[in-house]
Amino acid sequence: MEKTDIAIIGNGPAGISAALTAKVRNCDFKIFGNKDVSRKLDLAKKIENYPGEYNISGHQLIEKYQKQLDLMGIVVNEERINNVYCSNDYFLLLTDKNEYQAKAVILAGGAPNGKLIEGEKDYLGKGVSYCATCDGNLYKNKIIAVICDDKSLEEEVEYLAGLAQKVYYYSAYKTDLHLPNVNISTKKIQRIVGEKFVDGIISDDGSMLKVDGVFILRSVVNADSLVYGLKTVNGNVVVDRNMATDIAGLFACGDITGRPYQIVKALGEGNVAIHSAISYLNKK
Amino acid sequence: MEKTDIAIIGNGPAGISAALTAKVRNCDFKIFGNKDVSRKLDLAKKIENYPGEYNISGHQLIEKYQKQLDLMGIVVNEERINNVYCSNDYFLLLTDKNEYQAKAVILAGGAPNGKLIEGEKDYLGKGVSYCATCDGNLYKNKIIAVICDDKSLEEEVEYLAGLAQKVYYYSAYKTDLHLPNVNISTKKIQRIVGEKFVDGIISDDGSMLKVDGVFILRSVVNADSLVYGLKTVNGNVVVDRNMATDIAGLFACGDITGRPYQIVKALGEGNVAIHSAISYLNKK
Repeated sequence: MEKTDIAIIGNGPAGISAALTAKVRNCDFKIFGNKDVSRKLDLAKKIENYPGEYNISGHQLIEKYQKQLDLMGIVVNEERINNVYCSNDYFLLLTDKNEYQAKAVILAGGAPNGKLIEGEKDYLGKGVSYCATCDGNLYKNKIIAVICDDKSLEEEVEYLAGLAQKVYYYSAYKTDLHLPNVNISTKKIQRIVGEKFVDGIISDDGSMLKVDGVFILRSVVNADSLVYGLKTVNGNVVVDRNMATDIAGLFACGDITGRPYQIVKALGEGNVAIHSAISYLNKK
Repeated sequence: MEKTDIAIIGNGPAGISAALTAKVRNCDFKIFGNKDVSRKLDLAKKIENYPGEYNISGHQLIEKYQKQLDLMGIVVNEERINNVYCSNDYFLLLTDKNEYQAKAVILAGGAPNGKLIEGEKDYLGKGVSYCATCDGNLYKNKIIAVICDDKSLEEEVEYLAGLAQKVYYYSAYKTDLHLPNVNISTKKIQRIVGEKFVDGIISDDGSMLKVDGVFILRSVVNADSLVYGLKTVNGNVVVDRNMATDIAGLFACGDITGRPYQIVKALGEGNVAIHSAISYLNKK
């Protein structure tokens, strides 16, 4: 298992800001993110209030960030962190394939998704899963629903289709996936139901579909799904002025901590979070 | 008296960040600062962790900021704010020559100066003054000490020399001011003494000098000298996550709120402070 002092989860403005300072301060750290950096940022046509870069586009900004990361020798690890477990001495981070151990963790994964699906939390681990690689094998030859909000995660849907007998695929985007055992649905899921385990899903038209499991694949994992027991209010991670959460050694920054959803706010918080993480490790 | 919705005091990174967003949000605002922007910033040879601008110098950054202010039509008012008074409905800001009224105020004046001089607070308004123009006339033909930490304020020393009988000038820099009634001292002032009013000053060599008044001219006025009663801890303005101080309508951002003393942290806090000020005004 790979070990690191500080793990930064997210490579939007907050995570990048934390990583730049981590590098300057010679920290032992890893940053996890995805190639697209921040799709929300990429869509920004012009940003007027970025100090020093009047009317820069989100895309140009991402290019500048990437150039800076390259010059400083910072490499983003593109594995997605599915879970963070806290023990007394360290944090355990699980990706689809690997485990990482870190002494401090900075959550910079972006704004929480809208509402959870009704029943999602109740059946987590009881038929509801966020991770195809982790749990796919449990549904060999079974019937599953897959809810996905990010086309770049579609290969996980294909992977599941290779295992399951039948996949009902609910996508938040236009898809052209054609596989014999995949049924693309345009309905919206209202509720996950069952007794001890998932029995099925109820759509917005009131119809019930019996399934053995539900996979929910989101580009951003909500913070309290990522870290069990983490204190949030309205989906926002609760932090103090040092960006410390209620879990020792765990910090959060950027949109994940709430409004204003602004690049500059995220940069500033990322800077504070890494300073706090360094100071936490020094005291330890 | 000029009125404005929001007054931003300081044009370092925090103040500029607040002003950029104030402009984007079409606020009625004024920003007060000085031509040198932030001398601390100007001295930075290379900044590695400014997101998007690897190894930029502080000087280049100031030029970029100025260009952006110009493009956006933001003009920095170069009068120095000497005092901020709070009433129920508005804030009153005093410069050497003018008064301004604001509904909300953002303090972005930079890190607090080191220690106050012993007795400075006790004799404020009782022989100790921060403002040559405001109080100079009280010391016509009298003997005064002037303590100054910023050469760009030397014209205030000359102004005082034109009024007083004798000026003992304590500068934190090399000065070549030659005026018949100005005595340049290289001693360090240890303490201001007196009974009800200032009687004199005691230097580090233990010698006592009798003076009628003491002017203390600093580039950065400590926040709690600027705003009477403002809550500070170790000289840092106490703020919550919204950058709100303990006085309604008064916000603070940047080095004035404490460490880390980082440009990026200041930018982020300036952004949050202006959003909070806007939201405060909307609720009002």
